[in-house]
Amino acid sequence: MARSGLFISFEGGEGAGKSTQIRRLAAALEKRGLDVVVTREPGGSPGAEAVRHVLLNGAAEAYGTRMEALLFAAARSDHVEQVIRPALSRGSVVLCDRFMDSSRVYQGVTGNLEPDFIEALQRVAINGVVPDRTIILDIPADMGLERARSRGRAESTDPDRFEREQLETHEKRRHGFLDIAVREPDRCKVVDATRSEDEIAGEIRKLVEVLLKPEAGRLRQKADQAR
Amino acid sequence: MARSGLFISFEGGEGAGKSTQIRRLAAALEKRGLDVVVTREPGGSPGAEAVRHVLLNGAAEAYGTRMEALLFAAARSDHVEQVIRPALSRGSVVLCDRFMDSSRVYQGVTGNLEPDFIEALQRVAINGVVPDRTIILDIPADMGLERARSRGRAESTDPDRFEREQLETHEKRRHGFLDIAVREPDRCKVVDATRSEDEIAGEIRKLVEVLLKPEAGRLRQKADQAR
Repeated sequence: MARSGLFISFEGGEGAGKSTQIRRLAAALEKRGLDVVVTREPGGSPGAEAVRHVLLNGAAEAYGTRMEALLFAAARSDHVEQVIRPALSRGSVVLCDRFMDSSRVYQGVTGNLEPDFIEALQRVAINGVVPDRTIILDIPADMGLERARSRGRAESTDPDRFEREQLETHEKRRHGFLDIAVREPDRCKVVDATRSEDEIAGEIRKLVEVLLKPEAGRLRQKADQAR
Repeated sequence: MARSGLFISFEGGEGAGKSTQIRRLAAALEKRGLDVVVTREPGGSPGAEAVRHVLLNGAAEAYGTRMEALLFAAARSDHVEQVIRPALSRGSVVLCDRFMDSSRVYQGVTGNLEPDFIEALQRVAINGVVPDRTIILDIPADMGLERARSRGRAESTDPDRFEREQLETHEKRRHGFLDIAVREPDRCKVVDATRSEDEIAGEIRKLVEVLLKPEAGRLRQKADQAR
């Protein structure tokens, strides 16, 4: 793949502030004239959105973790090939809300699937498109859940099923993300998400800045500035 | 799994007569008082039928072979856990129109997926539910396609996309099925499908008969006869 863009994924439990921080980082990068693509999982492409609908309405819950893992992988494969890879080839900066590490953690924690299979499934789904940097927003489960709940009441009357899960499971997932960061310290950076929005945004900008400098020349400029 | 039933899958190219032969075998087994469940892939359960719809209307074709393979596996996982495994646990005879070997052959022939991955995907999707016997209905590709076309005109104005594929691909698939039969001779039996319906039905009954005898005591009787 002729890949000239920059791929940054955001991970972390509920209420860690991923959406907010992605919005802020996107705004900061666009202000610098870069072409930014913001996307999310599950979903992010027409085929993946169709699968996302099945997954989030809870219908898949009755089908078991195997079918769920396979549907997530199918959605990711479509998202990668239709959206992320083309954007990286154009030289854009791609910010993705959840990616492969979420699958590892969410499916790994259930304990129903063999770790080898989860890894093999990820390899096929991402087909070589590994993030250049993964920002893990870390927050204790109780604090994150409280934030997610208040946000859920404010924004929606139908919170998706992930937010109905229990505290203990959330804490296990938190440690799942931290374990990945320990195993892949070059790619993954853990950010303390209990601090203020501004502090978190500042640290994230620094973590991305070090990747931008050597790449500045190859990155695509925003369409309206390029003209 | 407490598995007391009998699982028979039918494989082969287009126009080999799978549906007809499954109907005939089901009738013969029911006449003997056995409880028979006839099912098919892709599909066979509510979750799998939802995925089947996406796959057969051709929408998935644009998504690439990876997403397609993962969607097939997700559908199979649901079909196995919701339909096949429960039926086998009850002691029924399950006749399935296409199963894991179709995926191996159809996905293997495209050459876009690693054989190891296809095998790993199958293992997860079937989760231990391997057919006791697989009947491979073998027919030269040109003869099978001709039969499928005439049937397609008679039965439907919208033949599904598989039947629009080319002759060469069909011949490759035929050899894919024969290769599997060579590798797994105990499970897979090749039946010459160029003969008359009656001859084929007779041979299939014999191939199933040898499995029924030692199992007769544990197999479930048809509900109306059991009462």
